[in-house]
Amino acid sequence: MDQHITERLRMNDLHTHIVSADEAASWIQDGMTIGLSGFTRAGDAKAVPTSLIERAKTETFKINVFTGASLGFDLDKLMAEAGIIHKRLPFQADSSMRKKINDGSLYFVDQHLSHTAELIRSKVLDPIDYAIIEAVAITEEGLIIPTTSVGNSSIFIEKAKNVIIELNLTQPAELEGLHDIYSPNEQGERGPIMLTSIEERIGEIGIRVDLAKIKGIVITQSLDSPSTIVPPDEETAQMAAHLINFLREEVKAGRLTNELAPLQSGIGSVANAVLHGLIHSEFENLEVYSEVLQDAVFDLFDHGKIRFASACSITLSEKKMNEVYANLEMYRDKLILRPQEISNHPELIRRFGLLSINTALEADIYGNINSTHVSGTKMMNGIGGSGDFARNARTAIFVTKSTAKNGIISSIVPFASHVDHTEHDVDILVTEQGYADLRGLAPRERALVIIHNCAHPMYKDQLLQYFEEASLRGGQTPHMLEKAFSWHTRLADQGTMLEKQLSPSL
Amino acid sequence: MDQHITERLRMNDLHTHIVSADEAASWIQDGMTIGLSGFTRAGDAKAVPTSLIERAKTETFKINVFTGASLGFDLDKLMAEAGIIHKRLPFQADSSMRKKINDGSLYFVDQHLSHTAELIRSKVLDPIDYAIIEAVAITEEGLIIPTTSVGNSSIFIEKAKNVIIELNLTQPAELEGLHDIYSPNEQGERGPIMLTSIEERIGEIGIRVDLAKIKGIVITQSLDSPSTIVPPDEETAQMAAHLINFLREEVKAGRLTNELAPLQSGIGSVANAVLHGLIHSEFENLEVYSEVLQDAVFDLFDHGKIRFASACSITLSEKKMNEVYANLEMYRDKLILRPQEISNHPELIRRFGLLSINTALEADIYGNINSTHVSGTKMMNGIGGSGDFARNARTAIFVTKSTAKNGIISSIVPFASHVDHTEHDVDILVTEQGYADLRGLAPRERALVIIHNCAHPMYKDQLLQYFEEASLRGGQTPHMLEKAFSWHTRLADQGTMLEKQLSPSL
Repeated sequence: MDQHITERLRMNDLHTHIVSADEAASWIQDGMTIGLSGFTRAGDAKAVPTSLIERAKTETFKINVFTGASLGFDLDKLMAEAGIIHKRLPFQADSSMRKKINDGSLYFVDQHLSHTAELIRSKVLDPIDYAIIEAVAITEEGLIIPTTSVGNSSIFIEKAKNVIIELNLTQPAELEGLHDIYSPNEQGERGPIMLTSIEERIGEIGIRVDLAKIKGIVITQSLDSPSTIVPPDEETAQMAAHLINFLREEVKAGRLTNELAPLQSGIGSVANAVLHGLIHSEFENLEVYSEVLQDAVFDLFDHGKIRFASACSITLSEKKMNEVYANLEMYRDKLILRPQEISNHPELIRRFGLLSINTALEADIYGNINSTHVSGTKMMNGIGGSGDFARNARTAIFVTKSTAKNGIISSIVPFASHVDHTEHDVDILVTEQGYADLRGLAPRERALVIIHNCAHPMYKDQLLQYFEEASLRGGQTPHMLEKAFSWHTRLADQGTMLEKQLSPSL
Repeated sequence: MDQHITERLRMNDLHTHIVSADEAASWIQDGMTIGLSGFTRAGDAKAVPTSLIERAKTETFKINVFTGASLGFDLDKLMAEAGIIHKRLPFQADSSMRKKINDGSLYFVDQHLSHTAELIRSKVLDPIDYAIIEAVAITEEGLIIPTTSVGNSSIFIEKAKNVIIELNLTQPAELEGLHDIYSPNEQGERGPIMLTSIEERIGEIGIRVDLAKIKGIVITQSLDSPSTIVPPDEETAQMAAHLINFLREEVKAGRLTNELAPLQSGIGSVANAVLHGLIHSEFENLEVYSEVLQDAVFDLFDHGKIRFASACSITLSEKKMNEVYANLEMYRDKLILRPQEISNHPELIRRFGLLSINTALEADIYGNINSTHVSGTKMMNGIGGSGDFARNARTAIFVTKSTAKNGIISSIVPFASHVDHTEHDVDILVTEQGYADLRGLAPRERALVIIHNCAHPMYKDQLLQYFEEASLRGGQTPHMLEKAFSWHTRLADQGTMLEKQLSPSL
């Protein structure tokens, strides 16, 4: 046995379980439900799904695919294109899969990322036939050590009928010891989750498994696909500046100190860029309690800004991944990776009092947020953990550029074409124009602050006109339903949300 | 000193603080913020607000009024009509106040009922100048014993600059000992809430107060205004039957036993009637963990169905109030009243795994719920605790009759005209037509189940037609935005949501 393997596969009894990816993939049958490790490209099972996709070239089958969140390695793309998915949950972020979701070829169940484990525990979702989980090691006692994400891997292993481990020899061995695997019992039979600070440990360093369920171990050697984060630009720098101004006002008002409160930041370039802006602020000794740690968190570490970070995945660009992996020892005692039902648990988010920063696709004048649906119908990625955080945070912050596609789309609209977060859950809205502090305001007050502080100048009058005309009809939340979506229909018909843009008289 | 008073006001030092309601009311100045006890008509401060309303006949002033939830004693009505309210939060249920909210004369901040205390703690809301709290007693050590609700009384007393107690001699003395007052610390400085079963106690029987803040004690002698619950009718009986069928299926599937899981039921006649239906079911030894206990809970107690009930208020009809008060000793060891931040706390709702039952005004075909806004604009009552419960429950159940106003309104519409609960938080929809189990379904699947199981027959084809036509355009959540609100505009223009209802060719 290869020494590299024996160092990673330390439970000797399991050496006989090593199989090829093709063989493991051959066990997955039409109609089955599989649970894959992987959260925002990090720590995904890579080899068996790839073999499964290969199998689809000569065989027709459909399966349900559950994950932590989005997968890397083009797996969502290739599975969608191979047509092997019947149902996918709880999150994805791939353009081909998006296309298949929106043309109706596969069902996508868009879930709060903390909910999936509960639905599995309570036997609401289809039973999982195979959990396919990437590991960096299996210990002497048979603990499965995850790699760069925990996601739903622990609940998949706990509840699946069968388990396949992808033992990844290339993921850094130093990941071992980083995880804290804690499994709450079923709802109604559980106690408090005894975390009182973000760096505490309440679980084990790996996932405990009924060894009889391990059907195969596949040896793999690929790193995660790097993230393709867009670097900060002028507008995201402005958004970061507005966010910092807001935080300064909070400190002045005695609501926060310069250590702020644990930060959460959603996936994606905008949230990453905004967080990145804290590097050159006066805030320090920061804590991060989030679902995903992107480049910005490690940049903040490198600038001595962060005291500790807890999450359920690490998703980095290629450059940052090389840097971080080369110095993993440096970060190890400042990092914990937890299951997503813990990283995203309402109990903990509320207790810690997070400052949560998530991205909006569009916001309406009352501060209802659309995070997912382009023009109310086409799925972009999914709600992810944004609802887990926004509902329970100390301060729920949403960020979006005020316009999209060179201004033909206003991100601030009269009526959100899809609502993922209601006005009750949206405290602060930030665009490159400014920020709106909506806390304690009634809808009619919210509208004015949002329009004045956040809307792009070219859309302000148009928004004010809608609001004022609607207000004449009265209501807690004034609207003219016959015109509520006129901005979206104008975009579809005339190619812009701007009024009279195409009128010959202009 | 009247013996009746000395029995209730047992801290002798405070006897000098007794003042008239008029005098106490005279301390409230223009621009102040007051925090009133009171949750769904129960345990409201009655005398001082009444004097304040009287003062408005000869004096112009505006105040902010915070409460637990809705008030009885016509206080919301009279305060609204007197024009003394600048801002009101977090819930109301009065027709006159509703009118003032909707005509723009006062600001209403519609909040999750668990959020208000957090916003006070974190100094986001205006500081409270006077907490005016109804009590049934003040103990020897100065503990304030609330009456029929706790609501936000404990946080108001903790954070207000001044406190006025309305010592109510008519509320039954046996209420003492019923409450469990526990105050979590600020977010970021608190530990787990150590409740692991609904009957545990973690606090004190009354509210601790800095005695120097007590500015006056007003003696009062009025019971709460009784609730005006509408008795179960044929449709609510059908809804109850469907709910029971759903619960039976859960038991069959091994997800619940006949003891079910702790039940939560929202305020109002429909939720009360549906809960009432459990009397003649096989379910027993039930637990209730809710915000308000209405008649149905005590009917279930009387039929030996309930083991224990925890809430933050008791709101009864006149008849039931007389029965319950005459036998309070019988219920005392089966009841706890807690602050609303505990009754509605996400941490506990999630831990206990509640079955939550709340009322919808309208639902759309994808299961987004409007709980608050008539035709998307006019406030009815407020979101109340429905979001606290639905988001975190084991199973979030929403109930509504399939039509309103003799059928001119379908409660199932293409697009909810206001969204309080997104599809992610809506598991089961119940109408008198049947129930839709939406768990684990994608939006396109949800639509078919809702239309087939829940819509009224006279609207089914119309809904299907919208869905099918929209589906041709694709999308995760198919819509035709230009027609999404056509049902609501048809209602406004033609007096019905039914198509071709007024067409001469029919």
